[in-house]
Amino acid sequence: MKRIENFKSIIDKYDIIFFDAFGVIKTYQGLVPGIHKTFDYLEAQGKEYYIVTNDASRSPVQLAESYHRHGLKHITHDRIVSSGMLTKEYLDLKVDDGIVAFLGTPESSHYIDSSGLHTLPVSQINADNIDKVNALIFLDDEGFNWCDDLNKTVNILRKRTIPVIVANTDKAYPVSLSDVGIAIGGIAAMIESIIGKQFIRFGKPDSQMFMFAYDLIREYRPISKKQIVMVGDTLQTDILGGNKFGLDTVLVLSGNTLPKDADNRITSTGIVPTYICDSAVVGLDGFDF
Amino acid sequence: MKRIENFKSIIDKYDIIFFDAFGVIKTYQGLVPGIHKTFDYLEAQGKEYYIVTNDASRSPVQLAESYHRHGLKHITHDRIVSSGMLTKEYLDLKVDDGIVAFLGTPESSHYIDSSGLHTLPVSQINADNIDKVNALIFLDDEGFNWCDDLNKTVNILRKRTIPVIVANTDKAYPVSLSDVGIAIGGIAAMIESIIGKQFIRFGKPDSQMFMFAYDLIREYRPISKKQIVMVGDTLQTDILGGNKFGLDTVLVLSGNTLPKDADNRITSTGIVPTYICDSAVVGLDGFDF
Amino acid sequence: MKRIENFKSIIDKYDIIFFDAFGVIKTYQGLVPGIHKTFDYLEAQGKEYYIVTNDASRSPVQLAESYHRHGLKHITHDRIVSSGMLTKEYLDLKVDDGIVAFLGTPESSHYIDSSGLHTLPVSQINADNIDKVNALIFLDDEGFNWCDDLNKTVNILRKRTIPVIVANTDKAYPVSLSDVGIAIGGIAAMIESIIGKQFIRFGKPDSQMFMFAYDLIREYRPISKKQIVMVGDTLQTDILGGNKFGLDTVLVLSGNTLPKDADNRITSTGIVPTYICDSAVVGLDGFDF
Amino acid sequence: MKRIENFKSIIDKYDIIFFDAFGVIKTYQGLVPGIHKTFDYLEAQGKEYYIVTNDASRSPVQLAESYHRHGLKHITHDRIVSSGMLTKEYLDLKVDDGIVAFLGTPESSHYIDSSGLHTLPVSQINADNIDKVNALIFLDDEGFNWCDDLNKTVNILRKRTIPVIVANTDKAYPVSLSDVGIAIGGIAAMIESIIGKQFIRFGKPDSQMFMFAYDLIREYRPISKKQIVMVGDTLQTDILGGNKFGLDTVLVLSGNTLPKDADNRITSTGIVPTYICDSAVVGLDGFDF
Repeated sequence: MKRIENFKSIIDKYDIIFFDAFGVIKTYQGLVPGIHKTFDYLEAQGKEYYIVTNDASRSPVQLAESYHRHGLKHITHDRIVSSGMLTKEYLDLKVDDGIVAFLGTPESSHYIDSSGLHTLPVSQINADNIDKVNALIFLDDEGFNWCDDLNKTVNILRKRTIPVIVANTDKAYPVSLSDVGIAIGGIAAMIESIIGKQFIRFGKPDSQMFMFAYDLIREYRPISKKQIVMVGDTLQTDILGGNKFGLDTVLVLSGNTLPKDADNRITSTGIVPTYICDSAVVGLDGFDF
Repeated sequence: MKRIENFKSIIDKYDIIFFDAFGVIKTYQGLVPGIHKTFDYLEAQGKEYYIVTNDASRSPVQLAESYHRHGLKHITHDRIVSSGMLTKEYLDLKVDDGIVAFLGTPESSHYIDSSGLHTLPVSQINADNIDKVNALIFLDDEGFNWCDDLNKTVNILRKRTIPVIVANTDKAYPVSLSDVGIAIGGIAAMIESIIGKQFIRFGKPDSQMFMFAYDLIREYRPISKKQIVMVGDTLQTDILGGNKFGLDTVLVLSGNTLPKDADNRITSTGIVPTYICDSAVVGLDGFDF
Repeated sequence: MKRIENFKSIIDKYDIIFFDAFGVIKTYQGLVPGIHKTFDYLEAQGKEYYIVTNDASRSPVQLAESYHRHGLKHITHDRIVSSGMLTKEYLDLKVDDGIVAFLGTPESSHYIDSSGLHTLPVSQINADNIDKVNALIFLDDEGFNWCDDLNKTVNILRKRTIPVIVANTDKAYPVSLSDVGIAIGGIAAMIESIIGKQFIRFGKPDSQMFMFAYDLIREYRPISKKQIVMVGDTLQTDILGGNKFGLDTVLVLSGNTLPKDADNRITSTGIVPTYICDSAVVGLDGFDF
Repeated sequence: MKRIENFKSIIDKYDIIFFDAFGVIKTYQGLVPGIHKTFDYLEAQGKEYYIVTNDASRSPVQLAESYHRHGLKHITHDRIVSSGMLTKEYLDLKVDDGIVAFLGTPESSHYIDSSGLHTLPVSQINADNIDKVNALIFLDDEGFNWCDDLNKTVNILRKRTIPVIVANTDKAYPVSLSDVGIAIGGIAAMIESIIGKQFIRFGKPDSQMFMFAYDLIREYRPISKKQIVMVGDTLQTDILGGNKFGLDTVLVLSGNTLPKDADNRITSTGIVPTYICDSAVVGLDGFDF
């Protein structure tokens, strides 16, 4: 584990950079100040990059638009790999027909829409259509009535033996400097524990996320895992997942892991990044805009 | 483990009977048909009994009134031991002043009201009074907005290092022949997992429930655990807790554990009741009303 | 939570003191230096005390002898409440006949011997006597061959649906300044997870330990929980258990919880002692020997 | 979920078959009777197949030799994908120098030997070389003294913040008709729980196993996940992992899942195979040798 002063030296070492989104590129307040310099430098150097995110609430196109609105024009939708894309792949491969019930916003569901399948919010499942429900998906913590629809979800899953997909494994996410929100991954874990069935989880640290990005690259060029580095702010997802997939990893201290806690957390979890760096912002030395 | 035809023979063997409420005396439809005969027989034989219940949503007085409304006049409030009573004892002993925030109905909170403490629903905690919150209690799954108040609860507990009490350990409870509801114990487990702090749980199988009932009896008569039997419909709470406290136990098949599943569940959990009996209803042979 | 300079002021506030043993009175090196002064002061002040320990490897008589050998003559066997005593009570109440198989040393098994029961090490269970095995007890991490006897234990428990008691819930214990040993509680958790059955655990933080000590006192005098304080070095067992039982609690920093970690651990676990004190040794001021 | 009479019809539907080893091709007694017919048919039809196994105790070459000794000549070492191979890949990518400590037999360790690394059994780690230990691997339940070396492992991991790899995630494995053995995955889970650090697990249901086999195929031909079927006897590993990776799955009833339990287990776990078949043996109809 090495401390790195300037994120620039990380970029110089690798051909491809995987970035986590939240806590690395953006926070609840908007973009991480100065992060555009990192993408300027990446483009100037001809390096490739992907955003590997557990955010399944919107499609890559919508996520990219959100970066653009905030002034970061570099990130295009084809650079974004989300746990929602794995969910969509699962449905394409494994669910042939019928209804896919979901918890989340309408936006999140359009995204997983697939030919032959009918997505329907849990609130619209009833005695008439429950027998056609062939999968249930936890997409987002918004867009439904928690009390009504979580109780309904429990009872649908007691009646139907179907695959249940959790498209975002996070338990909580920051909503302000001091507050967090309960994420759909936390809600899904409660339902799983109540009904005692095993759900399918996509999202870091699961290696399928990294594999998806890795496969995207391999479609147009040969690559070795040695040429890729994963940059993230969370030991249990970004760093553990990147390490396990065989990538070098950088823990940045601009999000979930505070500078004062980093060493303690690494020791207590046993999850060791290859590098630690204050942020993913390229510093001034030797490269200025 | 012995199969017993008539619950009467259980009563004949013991001096004091502990009953679980839900699935034994009542169900979502009202009283278990014929259960009044059991209490008639208990009274006729001069046997004592207690209802030992994880229901913290109402006070013993309110719970007793509910039995009376349904026509079961025998059960008086002093016969009822609930996990809410342990919660109240905890507050009396361990929390001297300030605010006790709670999730639940107003009825559940009146019940734990204690001199010197101020109970306040989580929805009424704000920046002005959060520093006075000295305990937080999960009482009931009703009486609050799940989305707003659960998110608020997470953030209160991130800011205040205070005891958190879960007054009902059940994760779900039956609401109809086919459906269950998420219980406050399931919700509390989700919050506990999100914030990573350790909550205090009252309610079976925890032995403090049995101890509380046992102490009530010992106040007016000497008793040995050998003279008490615990009757319940759930292996993981009633039977495990009763066994561990050193009591003989009866699994009845009128609630959570279906007759067709009983043997399998006993083998797979390793939780073995002393007796199995179809229900807690005293049968016709040798005693008829 | 108050910081206390001199443990003497704790003793002055309460009538009865419960002490954890390991990390409070003794360590892997012998007695905590100066701890005899605490017991001198307790006796001088006419205060009562009990040792409440998860150590089931030896009987109270043997544990007391060990204190005497180290020069602490005050602690007599009737002052010691161990998780082994709860195990013995369980067997007396709930297992009528047959063989009680155990993992542990011969000393630990003599101790639970009970009229009518035959204790036998797991190594001596075979095809001829397995059908008579009516309980299995995890007593101590010594006295058996781990590989042979743990594999045998798994298979006994797959064949016999019997109560399994874990007489010591600790997962590890210190054996030197830098090293720990795997405790029988950690081994039992592995076996429980492999066979998927539910074991019965005695030992702090379970309230049955505190209840046992509390009942011993009530046999000869009336007492309120307000008059008792629990002193321990471990948040998850001593302090959590004491708090839950309704006792005031003192975290001492002479064992498991290091002075530099105490505040962090309290915040991260949410387990708050009433007091923190460097050690349970009565200091010099106002009382000198 | 469809019941299939003759495994032949499964082979006819897919281009590539992934087989679990234990409970599908072999049992504790040797080969599954008649299983050679399946491989005869696969070869006759020009279908490809891979053995995807959590067995990290031996190299693919040694595993293949074992099939040959039992008379199944078809399975060559390049057809075998084991969790040990993922372990080796991890070491190649992520551990540059120093000592790799392991629990297991010498055979299992030769296998992971890698240029630049020095594999050493845990028993040979001491004060002089502990600072050079840069990874620790759980390979096999044999080849070491459980009591000595598991205690030593705990203390190495308390002193060194290094990656810990569990090369076999199984908790138990069958050793005879009635008995199981504790597997290294069960032991690793105990150690992980004691030291509270997060281990890296390779082996089904983790998708990295399936990805490894999938990549092997893609090196020489294009393939879609739709053309592959995973055959296994265990819902929680083979079927869950296969489903999650996007493959069709076949549950065979020749191993872990007994015919009488299959429906119950599918309902209670919510893990649904595409097909159920008595065994992976090609039946007589329409194809006879």
